[in-house]
Amino acid sequence: MPIPTIDDLHAARTRIAPWIHRTPVLTCDTLDRMSGASLFFKCENFQKTGAFKARGAVNAVFSLTDTQAAQGVATHSSGNHGMALARAAACRGIACTVVMPKTAPQPKIDAVRGYGGNVLFCEPTNSAREAALQTVIEQSGAIFVAPFNDAAVIAGQGSCALELLEQMPDLDAIIAPVGGGGLISGTAIACKSTAEGMKVYAAEPAQADDAYRSLKAGQRLVEDAPDTIADGLRASLGPLTWQIIQAHVDDIFLASEADIVAAMRLIWQRMKIVIEASCALPLAAILNNPETFAGQRVGVILTGGNVDLSRLPWSQS
Amino acid sequence: MPIPTIDDLHAARTRIAPWIHRTPVLTCDTLDRMSGASLFFKCENFQKTGAFKARGAVNAVFSLTDTQAAQGVATHSSGNHGMALARAAACRGIACTVVMPKTAPQPKIDAVRGYGGNVLFCEPTNSAREAALQTVIEQSGAIFVAPFNDAAVIAGQGSCALELLEQMPDLDAIIAPVGGGGLISGTAIACKSTAEGMKVYAAEPAQADDAYRSLKAGQRLVEDAPDTIADGLRASLGPLTWQIIQAHVDDIFLASEADIVAAMRLIWQRMKIVIEASCALPLAAILNNPETFAGQRVGVILTGGNVDLSRLPWSQS
Repeated sequence: MPIPTIDDLHAARTRIAPWIHRTPVLTCDTLDRMSGASLFFKCENFQKTGAFKARGAVNAVFSLTDTQAAQGVATHSSGNHGMALARAAACRGIACTVVMPKTAPQPKIDAVRGYGGNVLFCEPTNSAREAALQTVIEQSGAIFVAPFNDAAVIAGQGSCALELLEQMPDLDAIIAPVGGGGLISGTAIACKSTAEGMKVYAAEPAQADDAYRSLKAGQRLVEDAPDTIADGLRASLGPLTWQIIQAHVDDIFLASEADIVAAMRLIWQRMKIVIEASCALPLAAILNNPETFAGQRVGVILTGGNVDLSRLPWSQS
Repeated sequence: MPIPTIDDLHAARTRIAPWIHRTPVLTCDTLDRMSGASLFFKCENFQKTGAFKARGAVNAVFSLTDTQAAQGVATHSSGNHGMALARAAACRGIACTVVMPKTAPQPKIDAVRGYGGNVLFCEPTNSAREAALQTVIEQSGAIFVAPFNDAAVIAGQGSCALELLEQMPDLDAIIAPVGGGGLISGTAIACKSTAEGMKVYAAEPAQADDAYRSLKAGQRLVEDAPDTIADGLRASLGPLTWQIIQAHVDDIFLASEADIVAAMRLIWQRMKIVIEASCALPLAAILNNPETFAGQRVGVILTGGNVDLSRLPWSQS
């Protein structure tokens, strides 16, 4: 699979524009004081479906030929990608099936169905998930849209950084969380192609640190069932995202579970916005690493805001 | 006390501009669908100190002569006005004392002190509060800045609607919550002076309905210790705010406690922003009164976002 180019990112941006919000950039004096940096938060929690995933899914769906599209799309996801693909398919008027573990939270199931997606339940194991997806594809001819290891998805996610670079043209660095690596890959392509000298950093849960260990080892390592509150970041890198990250990401910072929750709460409290735990990684990394970030103008991608409001991490402790 | 004019509002806007955020206006497709209206949310939860109260307090403090200012300012508040006045005083470099009931929540006390304000505790009764404030004023010569029944405060709060009318020039109506009436008074002056035919509505908790009953009775009625989750709206109208409301507010809608909590949660869930309960009244009113709001372009003032994240109303039920 070819690595997307900056031209692919610009084409994606144009393609998805009618279906996607240009999200605002917010600042916060208190967080600037605490970090010693100037932070510019790109609010993808305000994005359609509540997460940046809407970008990649729309780009993948609208990149299909009419013949392909007529077959519908399918994926496996218990999170934001499933919702995003269901909505993207609805925007194009085609069918979408999302394979979900039967243990998935009811709000996520309802959300996929709310966007018109079909939900197919499977046992909560990787092999059951793969088998169920394979069956869907064979029986319906649906096109598989992978959650991150896909050139069209990566190009779509990269449109977020293109927007941010336009909204804030003189950033020194940009930081985003890394799970499967779709967002940080697109971000890295956008930054390294258009803003010379800009640093690209990723932040990752210490309890799901496959990207960090891969970068240090110089080879792709896969995580076996990591457990972190940042549920959007449990996936391991794919071959494509690994290749881009190895080439273009300057460093990866880890954050503990306690630091993730503290950073999440800080953003809620001080910025008055709802973000999910996966979203809090970059701020945790910035606060823990002043030697890298203090004095810098830093773009921070806030990835999503889909939270179960009845089960907040600080209420359960 | 003279009623502020539209010129006073424009002067206030210019005076406070260096100290105040021009807050963004957000929209939400889901809430538009649910209401049948086009809603434009003016996000004062993103304002300095987390609430619109920063506007009125800054205007009052910066309207003082140098001689007056040298004496410092004082108020009584267990909420957003105390914080706002402490910060406004700090911006001008003068002293501020806030009389607070000794039962006030620690975060509010810390916030006033964090902005450099002196906190003077009193027994949690009206008479103790008045007596403590009187003592401060007599001993220090501090200028009393009332939370709402004050022309400079009202003019400052009105700057919010001036901004909104500029950001969204073709609204049919505007709605804000009413407690003591400072915000809705300023809003009404702004709208009725500049946007002919625009309706101005207020929303009030059914359990703290003094403004509603006053408007129906044609005379100012005072509430005795109302109890509502919308803690910013427990105050009763003052003589000045009542005069403005009676002249300029088209109607007042009530909302039940359950409807307030439901609307608050809806905004968190769908708009991904943190608002306090008092903020949710307008949306509750809009959803309950489609005969008034459906088909209309409605400006909604979201008043503040200062919430104890450990004690959310839906977690306690």
